Amino acid sequence: MKIIIDAFGGDNAPVEILKGAALAVKELGVNIIAVGDENEIKKAITSNSIEENGISIAHAADIFKMEDNPVSIRHKGNETSMAVGLRLLRDGEGDAFVSAGSTGALVVGGTFIVKRIKGIKKTAIGSVMPGDNGPFMLMDSGANIDCTAKAIRQFAVMGSIYMKNVLGIENPRVGLANIGKEENKGSQLYIDAYEMLKNTPEINFIGNAEARDIPFTAADVVVADGFTGNIILKTYEGTALALLGNIKKIFTAGTLSKLSYLGVRKGLGDFKKKMDYKEYGGAALMGLTKPVIKAHGSSDAKAFKNAIRQAAQYSEKRVIDGLSEHLSKESGDDD
Amino acid sequence: MKIIIDAFGGDNAPVEILKGAALAVKELGVNIIAVGDENEIKKAITSNSIEENGISIAHAADIFKMEDNPVSIRHKGNETSMAVGLRLLRDGEGDAFVSAGSTGALVVGGTFIVKRIKGIKKTAIGSVMPGDNGPFMLMDSGANIDCTAKAIRQFAVMGSIYMKNVLGIENPRVGLANIGKEENKGSQLYIDAYEMLKNTPEINFIGNAEARDIPFTAADVVVADGFTGNIILKTYEGTALALLGNIKKIFTAGTLSKLSYLGVRKGLGDFKKKMDYKEYGGAALMGLTKPVIKAHGSSDAKAFKNAIRQAAQYSEKRVIDGLSEHLSKESGDDD
Repeated sequence: MKIIIDAFGGDNAPVEILKGAALAVKELGVNIIAVGDENEIKKAITSNSIEENGISIAHAADIFKMEDNPVSIRHKGNETSMAVGLRLLRDGEGDAFVSAGSTGALVVGGTFIVKRIKGIKKTAIGSVMPGDNGPFMLMDSGANIDCTAKAIRQFAVMGSIYMKNVLGIENPRVGLANIGKEENKGSQLYIDAYEMLKNTPEINFIGNAEARDIPFTAADVVVADGFTGNIILKTYEGTALALLGNIKKIFTAGTLSKLSYLGVRKGLGDFKKKMDYKEYGGAALMGLTKPVIKAHGSSDAKAFKNAIRQAAQYSEKRVIDGLSEHLSKESGDDD
Repeated sequence: MKIIIDAFGGDNAPVEILKGAALAVKELGVNIIAVGDENEIKKAITSNSIEENGISIAHAADIFKMEDNPVSIRHKGNETSMAVGLRLLRDGEGDAFVSAGSTGALVVGGTFIVKRIKGIKKTAIGSVMPGDNGPFMLMDSGANIDCTAKAIRQFAVMGSIYMKNVLGIENPRVGLANIGKEENKGSQLYIDAYEMLKNTPEINFIGNAEARDIPFTAADVVVADGFTGNIILKTYEGTALALLGNIKKIFTAGTLSKLSYLGVRKGLGDFKKKMDYKEYGGAALMGLTKPVIKAHGSSDAKAFKNAIRQAAQYSEKRVIDGLSEHLSKESGDDD
């Protein structure tokens, strides 16, 4: 298994990215192609004593910056590490691609360089999220502000195949994110999507997943348009950050509370691990002809290693074969 | 100050509602008109030894059930406690109305019985939410699935007046809920709303409030269409419930962890109070000619008392005069 990585994407690039790559070589037995400025990569490897065994370098002169227009990634002359990495993936130089860089650019680049599977309307972001009763996939979590009901139906099929193949969940429960459980809830898009999902025999549609229940793993696959999905993702993250920040403050407030921490350290540690989205890697770009993973922008070495593991599984578990089989026969008439 | 209450709305009606009313009489010095079946109310008061001083009863034979069609509240023959209470408010029998019953029915009933202020497009739900840096109003949090940019602009003006008059926040910061900070983020509705908000001199518009920052009180007034607002509200509540449930489990897991609780009890208690939405009362229905408060469906006596306090402030602080002054001159042409 050979994974191509964007060595210059994310807040902690290139050092943490390369450390994560070295961890992945050691722990997962994969090979890595690190894309980016060759001299900079060599320098980072040497000065941080990173084990370079299993890591080869593919040179790319530029870096895709967060403020760059995502659409510029399409241009032939774009020599950013992200664009070069996606071209290497397209050309079969590796099995999957991982970047912690700009999500927008990765979606555009994936769609126009790697290309979508025939019949699939939209490239979607499937974020694997920690839930109270196990992880779930939230999809689309931000690629498509405007969606049709048919696109949401495809998200459901894609998410089901991913959760079954990669996370081993048999017959994953699909829920439509919504403001209530009843069938007629939400905007016309949601009423239409409900009707379509109900009539899709290859998925296990369980109805609306009310936003309040989503953190309790109301469904294994939660589908939504990209605007709503991103609002859910970010409200979830923000609320968790605010609450856990307060809990931390309480424990560090004084001597007695610091002592108290000792008594619940293991419980809190286990809980933190359960809720740590870094454990699950990143978000899978779905609908492309090859596996692309978006790692969190703030990824450290461990998070990036987990994203590489996710990319390897995405490839190994033949998710894309499953998507092609189920969706390539669909007409493209209402895109 | 005389507050009309729906004695038969909410999960814990009528006992907790009446207990809350008695608390409000005692602590806030208000008078209460409790609407509902007279015999049932008298029985509940007697058998729970509720102090009836300051509480008068207005008879209503029926109860509005959660499964009833909200639109039925409009009908002249509707004798539910909610409909009768709203008519008493319309007829000037009290200064404000509070119900913990069906939100949908209260919005419809408020709009058609109490009526909107001239010039206001939509009745909106302004929920006062606990944030990490103080409470904020989320509006619309569920009344209007479909909104125009102009309606969102009115939510901003209404929310600003409420937060200034009732919570005493000078020059409240208004943020547009969105998936990113940049001006061009979101669907066309959000791009249009941004433009309108930017050009509304009477509010302090600070730009987009990214969903991740909303729990940190990114703005004092967060505006959104009702679908998105309700998704934010419910994701926020669900995430908080899931996390706090886990924290509780950790502390009750064994003897050592129970002992640990003693060391952080005060800190956790203060935090719980800060995050307890019951402290803030309920949600204000905005745009109506008289104050209507929706208390939480699960309100206990204390929560309902807080909702009564909120109703009294809504009336006393002349929020509706402010709304009329700012919005009654608007044309109704793009409703």
